[in-house]
Amino acid sequence: MIKTPYLLFLGDAPDMLATKVAIGIKDWRPDASVGQFRMEGCKADLGLPDMTIDQAIEAGAETLVIGVANRGGLISDSWKAVLVEALEKGMDIASGLHNLLKDEAELAAAAMMHGRTLFDVRVPMVEFPIANGVKRTGKRCLPVGTDCSVGKMYTGLAMEKVMHARDMNATFRPTGQTGILITGGGIPLDAVVADFMAGAVEYLTPDNDADHWDLIEGQGSLFHVSYSGVTMALIHGGQPDALVLCHEPTRAHMRGLPDYQQPSLAELRDVALTLAKVANPACKVVGISVNTQHMSEVEADAYLKEVEAEMGLPTVDPFRHGAERLVDALAAC
Amino acid sequence: MIKTPYLLFLGDAPDMLATKVAIGIKDWRPDASVGQFRMEGCKADLGLPDMTIDQAIEAGAETLVIGVANRGGLISDSWKAVLVEALEKGMDIASGLHNLLKDEAELAAAAMMHGRTLFDVRVPMVEFPIANGVKRTGKRCLPVGTDCSVGKMYTGLAMEKVMHARDMNATFRPTGQTGILITGGGIPLDAVVADFMAGAVEYLTPDNDADHWDLIEGQGSLFHVSYSGVTMALIHGGQPDALVLCHEPTRAHMRGLPDYQQPSLAELRDVALTLAKVANPACKVVGISVNTQHMSEVEADAYLKEVEAEMGLPTVDPFRHGAERLVDALAAC
Repeated sequence: MIKTPYLLFLGDAPDMLATKVAIGIKDWRPDASVGQFRMEGCKADLGLPDMTIDQAIEAGAETLVIGVANRGGLISDSWKAVLVEALEKGMDIASGLHNLLKDEAELAAAAMMHGRTLFDVRVPMVEFPIANGVKRTGKRCLPVGTDCSVGKMYTGLAMEKVMHARDMNATFRPTGQTGILITGGGIPLDAVVADFMAGAVEYLTPDNDADHWDLIEGQGSLFHVSYSGVTMALIHGGQPDALVLCHEPTRAHMRGLPDYQQPSLAELRDVALTLAKVANPACKVVGISVNTQHMSEVEADAYLKEVEAEMGLPTVDPFRHGAERLVDALAAC
Repeated sequence: MIKTPYLLFLGDAPDMLATKVAIGIKDWRPDASVGQFRMEGCKADLGLPDMTIDQAIEAGAETLVIGVANRGGLISDSWKAVLVEALEKGMDIASGLHNLLKDEAELAAAAMMHGRTLFDVRVPMVEFPIANGVKRTGKRCLPVGTDCSVGKMYTGLAMEKVMHARDMNATFRPTGQTGILITGGGIPLDAVVADFMAGAVEYLTPDNDADHWDLIEGQGSLFHVSYSGVTMALIHGGQPDALVLCHEPTRAHMRGLPDYQQPSLAELRDVALTLAKVANPACKVVGISVNTQHMSEVEADAYLKEVEAEMGLPTVDPFRHGAERLVDALAAC
């Protein structure tokens, strides 16, 4: 587990978009983010206190999280003096970048010298078993999308927030880099070897109390040809009791695939439910989560009402309006 | 290149199915298999001469092929004395297991000492791209199964044999260790990292002549919870024009999953075709391949007729009776 609280390192981010990981952490774990570290030329600002390494240590920061991705996912040479200082002064470092902290000689040496840990959350830490498909105790909810990057992680986190506010027994289970950095644990599923994907999901969501819900972070889409295998492994390894359909209605085409169109929500429902019932015949689709960030309030309301009438399922934007109705549906499940 | 002929090592295989790799090599390269090596407790028998290492060397064996897979793909400690003896006495070793020969200190040391080569055919040799889903030229056929180990590889190899006899332009494309050991090339798809699975299949089946057919080796099943993600990546990365449904009608339950039943052929057809049409809207199911090895000739004939009438598709056991009718259906496609 990665120790909190975090100092969020924004480096020399050219814009807000480059700090998506830090924004995710700040949005979902504001309590775990003591401040931000910005270098000269940084164009991003999370609205957190700017801190030096010394100030962050003083404020209790245990881990510096690299919350910025530059072109190519590299660890910039210009960052290294700061990262080495953080290690020297007592912080661990966590990163979800493609290039690994542990492969950077200066960082590896400083970490060893000062007894600190480098967390490369893109690398699976465990040898996973082959999935055995045995029915597990407790309950599981999985968001599935019409496309990639439609809000599956935010849906799960928003549901967890409501469930905790209601004293329900629930755990968000990250399967991607940002989710792992937000919660401090999880499995980077897209980096797991093919044969062990479903086994990794079983490992991530073990037996639990009868009233406990795992909110599994979704990945990819059954309709996205680049990543559909990862989605399939989540559906069968996760053996969900409940699916939430996730959609972003303003896309011109599937993300990164100009020749492909998003399926309808009805198509997604039919194929996802058919496949989910293989692992859990009792699985149900309980609601719909729409990412309306590119719609006005009026447009969003009209769209949500229309989808709800058409699909006969509670339909909300959980980030914009809260996940209460999705949690109601889960509680009734 | 892996040198032939082979000694097929069956180890302490608990049943015939565990020696699928050896059976495949014996069936499709009988000329290349001088004998079998069985340890105490081995429950499998290929009907080849049983040989000691000395006898195999005497018979000309150049390579010991590990033709048995235990669950998890491990190299048993109990096998090692035999493997070291083979290296000492002059054989190379080839393996498709997940655990690598080269990672076993005793084997690596013995190979180095005696100037022998360890072939781990499960290790991908290439860094694959993320799939881009762009439509490729040429045609592709993919067998999909109601379960694992129902005859998908045999179906593809039997179709290739008929197509070559008819001077058709066709290539079997292995995606598993047995296929790679049989043909000398291919991609060990189940060892590819999740994000790159579909990209690996695109790489394996590139643009080709308009009249060329790739016969892609299937893996797993959309209905087998341990491996369905790999199957999904084959369907989307392969963008098949033609699917062949594969079935073994005598199984009591899904392979390795006592709590799971095989789907009907109609269920498989519907879900596989729906998903295949995402990548190739023109995809069709062209025929059905039934593995009747556990049925009498009379039972098999009756079953094939019954399925053909029910499904309205040419239905054959291509290993028992030849793949002519499946190839006819492909040619008409």
